[in-house]
Amino acid sequence: MIKLDLNYAGDALVADMASSNEVRADVERAYTEMYEKSGQGSDFLGWVDLPAEISAEHLADIKQTAADFRAKSEVFVCIGIGGSYLGTRAVEEALKPMFASGSLGNPEIIYAGHQLSEDYLSSLLKYLDGKEYTICVISKSGTTTEPAIAFRLLRTHLTKKYGTADGRIVAITDCKRGALKNLATKEGYKTYIIPDNVGGRYSVLTPVGLFPLAVLGIDIEALVRGAVEMRDSVRVARPDFENCACAKYVLLRNILYRQGKKMELMVQYDPRLFYFIEWWKQLYGESEGKENKGLFPAGAGFTTDLHSLGQYIQQGERFFFETVLSLDSQEHTLEVPFAEDDADGMNFVAGRRLSYVNSKAEAGTCMAHSIEGGVPVVRFEIPRLDAKTTGALIYFFEYACGLSGYTLGVNPFDQPGVEAYKKNMFKLLGKQ
Amino acid sequence: MIKLDLNYAGDALVADMASSNEVRADVERAYTEMYEKSGQGSDFLGWVDLPAEISAEHLADIKQTAADFRAKSEVFVCIGIGGSYLGTRAVEEALKPMFASGSLGNPEIIYAGHQLSEDYLSSLLKYLDGKEYTICVISKSGTTTEPAIAFRLLRTHLTKKYGTADGRIVAITDCKRGALKNLATKEGYKTYIIPDNVGGRYSVLTPVGLFPLAVLGIDIEALVRGAVEMRDSVRVARPDFENCACAKYVLLRNILYRQGKKMELMVQYDPRLFYFIEWWKQLYGESEGKENKGLFPAGAGFTTDLHSLGQYIQQGERFFFETVLSLDSQEHTLEVPFAEDDADGMNFVAGRRLSYVNSKAEAGTCMAHSIEGGVPVVRFEIPRLDAKTTGALIYFFEYACGLSGYTLGVNPFDQPGVEAYKKNMFKLLGKQ
Repeated sequence: MIKLDLNYAGDALVADMASSNEVRADVERAYTEMYEKSGQGSDFLGWVDLPAEISAEHLADIKQTAADFRAKSEVFVCIGIGGSYLGTRAVEEALKPMFASGSLGNPEIIYAGHQLSEDYLSSLLKYLDGKEYTICVISKSGTTTEPAIAFRLLRTHLTKKYGTADGRIVAITDCKRGALKNLATKEGYKTYIIPDNVGGRYSVLTPVGLFPLAVLGIDIEALVRGAVEMRDSVRVARPDFENCACAKYVLLRNILYRQGKKMELMVQYDPRLFYFIEWWKQLYGESEGKENKGLFPAGAGFTTDLHSLGQYIQQGERFFFETVLSLDSQEHTLEVPFAEDDADGMNFVAGRRLSYVNSKAEAGTCMAHSIEGGVPVVRFEIPRLDAKTTGALIYFFEYACGLSGYTLGVNPFDQPGVEAYKKNMFKLLGKQ
Repeated sequence: MIKLDLNYAGDALVADMASSNEVRADVERAYTEMYEKSGQGSDFLGWVDLPAEISAEHLADIKQTAADFRAKSEVFVCIGIGGSYLGTRAVEEALKPMFASGSLGNPEIIYAGHQLSEDYLSSLLKYLDGKEYTICVISKSGTTTEPAIAFRLLRTHLTKKYGTADGRIVAITDCKRGALKNLATKEGYKTYIIPDNVGGRYSVLTPVGLFPLAVLGIDIEALVRGAVEMRDSVRVARPDFENCACAKYVLLRNILYRQGKKMELMVQYDPRLFYFIEWWKQLYGESEGKENKGLFPAGAGFTTDLHSLGQYIQQGERFFFETVLSLDSQEHTLEVPFAEDDADGMNFVAGRRLSYVNSKAEAGTCMAHSIEGGVPVVRFEIPRLDAKTTGALIYFFEYACGLSGYTLGVNPFDQPGVEAYKKNMFKLLGKQ
């Protein structure tokens, strides 16, 4: 479903792929650890088999609650941070129609609890005064500062507005324990479960992503189906370095890292993939950035940023490589019109589809960055942007991330560094 | 107006600031080159004096055209890429009310011509079928591929919809030459001028930014006034390393670069500054990323990304430093409500403003990244987010960018690397 193109990776790197025996051996070990679930953090491998295990009844229940929420919402407020936020947003931005505004039966989604801006939440509460809305709150513990504060304010607002929270709040949380679980039980909120063995950044194909995406009318069955199909192709006991995009990607990025690259710059040529890259940044940054190791995950959107970061990529310091997400097709057709006077000199592309021009911009950029700029470029070819392909992409990058972390020699399923700021913050806030 | 806090920069770095004689000498040379306009690329220093030279008549004319556009637009389409796009968007996102939807007299802004997505432009044209709209097209030459194609499509659509383009298109372009200038003259578009001696990324305080921002109802006089005030404090013949935030910033980032840092990560704690950082990335990336030199400009939004890139920043590879944009105040007041049951355990901050909690998150993070993580943290304290302060911030980072580029030994006002992809693209598209 996803192809890897190494035409712009550079001959030296392609040769290194064959000769880097040490990295190849580490990738093989990583494949075994993932396949046998024998590596560090394997308690958190629930996401590996989950898509194949989701029952039709479970999906039907999610869809039914979602349909009810759609019917009564102009605005759907989704409260969560990190892995309880980015996956939903990535899929939403990839698949929702552009320039659609919310209406009853087809709500707009607004995120909350993903930062602490006072003006943001004040403005949101005021905006909600005049809107029909529902809330989904996503938190394993219910005590994470940002979503907990947002939910306190929003559930107060909602209860005041409607007299009751009945049928307007869904909680996605732990199955047994925690503040949100307790509150949901007490208040009688409809609840979906975050499985114990799935960490936040690997959770988009659990109710964490599936419920909000269903509220937006996205085909969650196709999303899951894409993940299941991708699972069949990447979840194997040994890497196929010749034919498998996943094995090649894991090998390549670990070779480049050991050769001294510090950053992977992932770029898209379609703005709908902006948040997919934000999701990817969390996935890889949190999974690999520990023990003073790991590639820093950065993102860019082309051709927009060719007129921004493009200069640096072409001629700046050479400490990174580039990974391209390339879309093979567009849903709509739009051609450059012919102009009698050709005042802007664009008649040389008159009659061409915009996607054709975009594809040549992409090819020209790959050549410029790789050949002239000396930046290795790895290209993923993605057939189209639909729910099934998006599900496949998610699973692909999740599985490649587990493999890549094990190849690097870290636990790709913990995040010990995230506690440091919280600890200091609680101290400064006088928490007992 | 803007303060620099070095409490989290680390003692070693603060000591280096006093003892790095070579860098200090280079910064002094850079100050002279900027002050005397004697350095490389000084033909493009028009932006230095421009804010002080903008006449009341010029601003009044811009505001009058803008008021006319406001009155007849639900949607205002702004066509431009790179420096003809990011400055406007940065100020728009910083200053526009959140959650406001467009209406006649108070239009929403939609950007176009900043990428080549076929689905994006198709959807936009369809959306505009049902909207009252106007267009602003920004291009010095009028032949840059992305905006030229978008403008062909959009002006065709607009002319078909209204029968005429009269009073609905403004062109911002070269004073004498170029495809857009010629077309504007032929079609009778109202025109504003991009000065010859101002490059795209330094152009937000010319009509390039001022006209679209006026259409959005932003106080462009205050914006310019802020820039003029900042000019008075940073545009001096010699650096004051003891007291001036600009001199300290330029010195610090060049010391860190020479010590081996490859990346500057700029972070905000308020989502309204997201596009300000995108603008800063273009400004610094294009100005410094050449001759295989320069800090890679990256961005993050906290506390959101503390649950994403946070892990890497805390414990990953140590090849970067962090620059914080910290807002001292918020417009609205919102306190964490008290909850009888304290189910979520948040009563320890009940009665506190969200901005107070956010400020402690920020302080806790600065400590965590700098002391525990070993990442030098430089903090800018910004009193508030209004038009005047935003204008000051823009001028501050522009002037510091010129100084920093000269300190690095490059021409901060050209972008030779941006042509590489275009050349390849034109060849692939068969342009004669």
